Amino acid sequence: MRHTLSVLVQNESGVLTKISGLFSGRGFNIESLTVAPTQEDKISRLTIVTNGDEKVIEQISKQLNRLINVIKVLDVTAGQSIDRELILIKIAALKPDDRSEILRIAEIFDADIVDVSSKTYTLEVMGDEIKIKSLIELLRPMGIKEMVRSGKVAILREMQTLSV
Amino acid sequence: MRHTLSVLVQNESGVLTKISGLFSGRGFNIESLTVAPTQEDKISRLTIVTNGDEKVIEQISKQLNRLINVIKVLDVTAGQSIDRELILIKIAALKPDDRSEILRIAEIFDADIVDVSSKTYTLEVMGDEIKIKSLIELLRPMGIKEMVRSGKVAILREMQTLSV
Repeated sequence: MRHTLSVLVQNESGVLTKISGLFSGRGFNIESLTVAPTQEDKISRLTIVTNGDEKVIEQISKQLNRLINVIKVLDVTAGQSIDRELILIKIAALKPDDRSEILRIAEIFDADIVDVSSKTYTLEVMGDEIKIKSLIELLRPMGIKEMVRSGKVAILREMQTLSV
Repeated sequence: MRHTLSVLVQNESGVLTKISGLFSGRGFNIESLTVAPTQEDKISRLTIVTNGDEKVIEQISKQLNRLINVIKVLDVTAGQSIDRELILIKIAALKPDDRSEILRIAEIFDADIVDVSSKTYTLEVMGDEIKIKSLIELLRPMGIKEMVRSGKVAILREMQTLSV
């Protein structure tokens, strides 16, 4: 099963090497990874999408927690988080029919056209996994010239007790 | 100066470790990094934001190109590319005045509110570097509870010759 891990680290030199080394050394797969600053100085956050059953994920989390510079590891896969990905995608748009179809798809997916040439349209879109996957599959028949994805990021929902 | 490098790699185990090791081993700074699949099977793209003068960037590019599994390295910093970042940001929203102000900012920045609690608002927004930076600075006084950034991604504009 796919899991998304959110990892807070002190952004010292070498921490990314140690973390990615832990994955490759133990044969854990990384599907996507992002590392970027947080609101705190000198603290960065990694969001890692990986595959494995509960046991493997528990093992990965434990080993990550043991690394110096790792502050906190959280599995944010469950329903209590919001996940998003950003994608920039350049599509072949030679035929008028294809151009119309791309514009229709863009409208449905709330995607903006950020670049146009005589041969291509480039779209930007943000969404959850299912939205991004559907968009790619719908555009694929036209011909994807280039595709740049951010990888998934996720944030926990703020818990609330509903009471009457 | 800040540079954005786009790196195509064969996504074999260990390639991320080698690349991040190259940066940390030589004291090159990584500000943000994303790695995610492309439209081609078994090929991933890294987008790396790093600091350095032209000479340092040239050196980094050369050393990246020498790594096995690295297919192509491109500096996409220049004006001919479109860059975007995605951010999920949770803001303290206890006071009614703060709640109104967050909603005003969200509207101006075309940000969606993706989660609301009695104490917080969570926004999602996508934009270029200046937009993301401005948003963070405007929201900071209210109190940023959590901030998850994708790191920058960039795509080249399709070149065109304008002729009359």
